[in-house]
Amino acid sequence: MSGWDLLIKNVHLATLAGGEGYANDYGAVHDGAIAVRDGRIAWLGPETEAAAHGSAAEERDGHGCWLTPGLVDCHTHIVHAGNRSDEFEVRLNGATYEEIARAGGGIMSTVRATRAASEDELLAQSLPRIRSLLAEGVTTLEIKSGYGLDLATEAKMLRVARRVAGVLPVRVATTFLGAHALPPDHAGRADAYIDAVCAMIPELAGAGLVDAVDAFCERIGFTAAQTERVFEASRRAGLPVKLHAEQLSDQGGAALVARFGGLSADHLEHLTDAGIAAMAASGTVAVLLPGAYYFLRDTTPPPVAALRAAGVPMAVATDCNPGTSPMTSLLLALNMACTLWRLTPREALLGATACAARALGLHGEVGTLEVGKRADFALWRIARPADLCYAIGFNPCAAVVNNGVWRVPQIDG
Amino acid sequence: MSGWDLLIKNVHLATLAGGEGYANDYGAVHDGAIAVRDGRIAWLGPETEAAAHGSAAEERDGHGCWLTPGLVDCHTHIVHAGNRSDEFEVRLNGATYEEIARAGGGIMSTVRATRAASEDELLAQSLPRIRSLLAEGVTTLEIKSGYGLDLATEAKMLRVARRVAGVLPVRVATTFLGAHALPPDHAGRADAYIDAVCAMIPELAGAGLVDAVDAFCERIGFTAAQTERVFEASRRAGLPVKLHAEQLSDQGGAALVARFGGLSADHLEHLTDAGIAAMAASGTVAVLLPGAYYFLRDTTPPPVAALRAAGVPMAVATDCNPGTSPMTSLLLALNMACTLWRLTPREALLGATACAARALGLHGEVGTLEVGKRADFALWRIARPADLCYAIGFNPCAAVVNNGVWRVPQIDG
Ligand SMILES: [Zn+2]
Ligand SMILES: [Zn+2]
Repeated sequence: MSGWDLLIKNVHLATLAGGEGYANDYGAVHDGAIAVRDGRIAWLGPETEAAAHGSAAEERDGHGCWLTPGLVDCHTHIVHAGNRSDEFEVRLNGATYEEIARAGGGIMSTVRATRAASEDELLAQSLPRIRSLLAEGVTTLEIKSGYGLDLATEAKMLRVARRVAGVLPVRVATTFLGAHALPPDHAGRADAYIDAVCAMIPELAGAGLVDAVDAFCERIGFTAAQTERVFEASRRAGLPVKLHAEQLSDQGGAALVARFGGLSADHLEHLTDAGIAAMAASGTVAVLLPGAYYFLRDTTPPPVAALRAAGVPMAVATDCNPGTSPMTSLLLALNMACTLWRLTPREALLGATACAARALGLHGEVGTLEVGKRADFALWRIARPADLCYAIGFNPCAAVVNNGVWRVPQIDG
Repeated sequence: MSGWDLLIKNVHLATLAGGEGYANDYGAVHDGAIAVRDGRIAWLGPETEAAAHGSAAEERDGHGCWLTPGLVDCHTHIVHAGNRSDEFEVRLNGATYEEIARAGGGIMSTVRATRAASEDELLAQSLPRIRSLLAEGVTTLEIKSGYGLDLATEAKMLRVARRVAGVLPVRVATTFLGAHALPPDHAGRADAYIDAVCAMIPELAGAGLVDAVDAFCERIGFTAAQTERVFEASRRAGLPVKLHAEQLSDQGGAALVARFGGLSADHLEHLTDAGIAAMAASGTVAVLLPGAYYFLRDTTPPPVAALRAAGVPMAVATDCNPGTSPMTSLLLALNMACTLWRLTPREALLGATACAARALGLHGEVGTLEVGKRADFALWRIARPADLCYAIGFNPCAAVVNNGVWRVPQIDG
């Protein structure tokens, strides 16, 4: 008989455990209960069996909700200043990309705004977007740097990302993305900028600001050779890597990040069979980002059927960013993954829980309902798990549990 | 000098007035104020001029928000029982439409659930969806019947639609859509069913349940000749008409509804130049429904450029329904209209205000900020009006005013 801190009764559990395969019925336990001790899952099973295993200081009635692992948004650029709605509007009124770039638009407008913002301003501007995610049951969030492109601003972004977890009830994983774009003061000197990025890595890592390192390997980004230098610097600093790969063209990025045992390759619309095989062999997660595909009106979907056949874990994330995916709803990303790319609702929900946790290297801590994992849950007023993927623009989140602490969905921080 | 009930200061007004043209800068009044008396707009203009025109019993600080007319969702099937997430899931797991229909899926599953639900159950199931719309600043909502397909259930749906306005702070326009689908007990006898629909019209109208009449004119719906009989019965009952037209094929529906001086033709992916000309001549609004286009993965967009050139007013709505657009976010519909169909943000916002009001025949009452119109407003924490169309899955609504009554966005009803 155990003494628990909290027992949640009258819920259906979608454990998402028992393998990240594709036919597991969400690992469901109908009419279940789940117990928490010291912020971790202490027991779960049919409610009728709870009393035989322990008793809790506090009991909560789940009112027949479905209870899932707290959602994990494993790819965001959600810390940034300003937005690009002005650019959105002038483009829809007929301006070309060239005209927008000449007028100072594009990613560099976000870099300028992010450099100009104080650390407090940057935090204040980012919090409403993050609250929007959290209101839908997100309990773990990846945040990338990459709108600084100089040491001071990259450090400022990462400090803000760390501060988020002190202000709002969310676990944050930080990713250094210095190799996001070439800053104007390095125009024509990409290799010199990569030298600078490689020098930033030990410095930022030493300050405890970096959980992983990412790069943008693309014709309009950095080459595979430059990316490899970033990865080598990351390895020297003891940091895992991930990569924006094969979004607009095949650069062999997926195979490269797999060769470094990378956590994930992200986007992947132009992924080849060789890239899939390399990812399958290394256990690298495919992070699918339907928001950017939708917003850019892309017509080449990632090779979902081939990834499925190869057993590559698939995650789904918002890619929240001001230029190509101004999206702050992970549930909507799940709907887009199903609607546009034909993921099953099970695959999509695994993609925002178990597989997303794996893409952050946090699969030992979060992403499934299993004894010993963190007690991060979302409770949903739904008839079945597929409702989370089916509805468009509806939030059925009834409560969130972070580290064993019960909250109503209003996230006031 | 006037005595006002309420004066809202420190806001930027997007009046959306001054014509429903396409280059009006949202009819903006920067640093404005707006005054209410007896639930209607009594004055609006620059805040510095307010004191010269009147004084108010109550003043509110808009904190620099943008203030728009309350949004109008002019095409929904939001009152229904059950959902179809099970069907969504089995289809994504490989079931064909035929298999789903054989298993009792499709629209008839919603008809069965709606017939089986009590009036109170039907209301209770519909309210969370409606609250989702209202939280985003919707103050006027059209609700169609059409999942009863018999007099008793159609009447039940329309009574529920009327009751919504007593439970939640929203203006409701009801539309009788008896000619939505052929009920199984009339299989092979569509003309006999249309006779029944025509007989329902005076009965439901006499009970005060109907503001307009709609039909589904399509190869898989009803013919133009059958639709015309419904329209003639509507004319006899003194009711305006609208039509689900040219969604899957050209049936001449837009020209038909225009010939009856109809309020709107809706969907319109297969609209012809002749249909556009007829709509322009009759002032019939084109109601664009990007949620269904997205959810069905349609690839034929409505002829937006031709509608624009012809000066046909364009509205944008959610089409909230369980089969083809399970969408409860009008802001997301605006984003889809811009992203997928290249409406400008101005056009999209007019489409959810001034033009949507026109599609309901309510343009004398709501849809713009003009003296004499109803004091239905939404206040937004945004930098510029285009933000409402640019963000995906973000709700910046700070407050709503219904009939002059100020509310925070939590809609508890
Ligand atoms: Zn990204
Ligand atoms: Zn419809």
